[in-house]
Amino acid sequence: MTEELLYAGKAKSIYRSDSPDELIVVFRDDITAFDGGKKDVLAGKGEYNARVSARLFELLEAAGVPTHLLAVEGPGRMRVRWLTMIPLEVIVRNIAAGSLVRNYPFEEGSRLDPPLIVIDYKDDTRHDPMLNDEIVLALRLATQAELDELKALALRVNEVLNGVFADLGILLVDFKIEFGRDAGGRIRLGDEISMDSMRLWDGETRESLDKDVYRFAKGDVLSTYARVADRILGDE
Amino acid sequence: MTEELLYAGKAKSIYRSDSPDELIVVFRDDITAFDGGKKDVLAGKGEYNARVSARLFELLEAAGVPTHLLAVEGPGRMRVRWLTMIPLEVIVRNIAAGSLVRNYPFEEGSRLDPPLIVIDYKDDTRHDPMLNDEIVLALRLATQAELDELKALALRVNEVLNGVFADLGILLVDFKIEFGRDAGGRIRLGDEISMDSMRLWDGETRESLDKDVYRFAKGDVLSTYARVADRILGDE
Repeated sequence: MTEELLYAGKAKSIYRSDSPDELIVVFRDDITAFDGGKKDVLAGKGEYNARVSARLFELLEAAGVPTHLLAVEGPGRMRVRWLTMIPLEVIVRNIAAGSLVRNYPFEEGSRLDPPLIVIDYKDDTRHDPMLNDEIVLALRLATQAELDELKALALRVNEVLNGVFADLGILLVDFKIEFGRDAGGRIRLGDEISMDSMRLWDGETRESLDKDVYRFAKGDVLSTYARVADRILGDE
Repeated sequence: MTEELLYAGKAKSIYRSDSPDELIVVFRDDITAFDGGKKDVLAGKGEYNARVSARLFELLEAAGVPTHLLAVEGPGRMRVRWLTMIPLEVIVRNIAAGSLVRNYPFEEGSRLDPPLIVIDYKDDTRHDPMLNDEIVLALRLATQAELDELKALALRVNEVLNGVFADLGILLVDFKIEFGRDAGGRIRLGDEISMDSMRLWDGETRESLDKDVYRFAKGDVLSTYARVADRILGDE
């Protein structure tokens, strides 16, 4: 049986499933950076991201955050609820790094307290431009009530993940999440939470443990992803 | 007597005055665009902008918006209150144009209702990056109460200016304003409101009546500024 491909992103493909309200997400081994300007294939990377995403979604569900996860179905494959995605990239930052320090006078590595939320418009052709609440409303990407809910959910996700990573001796510098609505209209966390979408630093050495290793050629990407996955998954 | 130059911007120079709480603003004939990438000198342009700014500040004061204007002191010269400037560019948009349509899926010329507020960080070295409320607070550029006040003042300025320009058959597409605090701690409108800082379209022809004539070489800049100044100033 050939599965019907519904959408192929830069690192994941979405297939129709045997159920109308469910989808199959395949985490591919593709890795890209700089708006697609740098691309590679790293065998096994998809599976690491899938397993880490699944574990973090499970922990978030247990903490009361609704997610799209239904089940892991083999290496790199996840069964999820079909969400109508909201085209926003919700970024939560605990420590100043990346584009924040390139664009604004924050000192790299400084603590952001409270955590800083930035929302980008998910549109590759426009290079995911940053939004403010007023533009979100003007483009009708979300209502004010939805924006409030998305921000509250994002901060709750941050709390849960900060707890997880603190126990592992890892700093959760920042991460990007996406939300959508399920068939019942409920907002759920979708997409992924992985080494591709989080910025993680070793708590002792501040060594990068995420896609920055790939972006800035800081070392062996696959072995970094493997080590981080091992720390997160423990003796699963 | 040589006046002490305190600050020279791209099109205005600020001098110390004979009073410690007051400054002299000289509107120069320099005109620049594209982050300083295009530059010219147009004799008389400074005076047009100074006269228009003064008239609009007067109308705003009469409508209850505090401004820095004290008096016009000769061609292109304005005496103002010394404000401690807040490094924000507050942009109010009534009609989609310019960077808004380049960066987001708004149709050029479409009405924005309610008017859209965007706030940029005034920092030429960083190319005035857009902010969101969260970054404003994290950088301590303003408190939440100040942000609320700035936005309310900006919308009030927009109401007043929309009334002024509607009477003149001119569309106020968008404008940029800046605020500061006077010696008593009160937030006042500072800087200028001129053909350099507003986007104005003729209500009938939608012809540009502002710096876009210079930016995009749409015609004779100086005669456009002269005509707009005449329409705004009437038989002053």
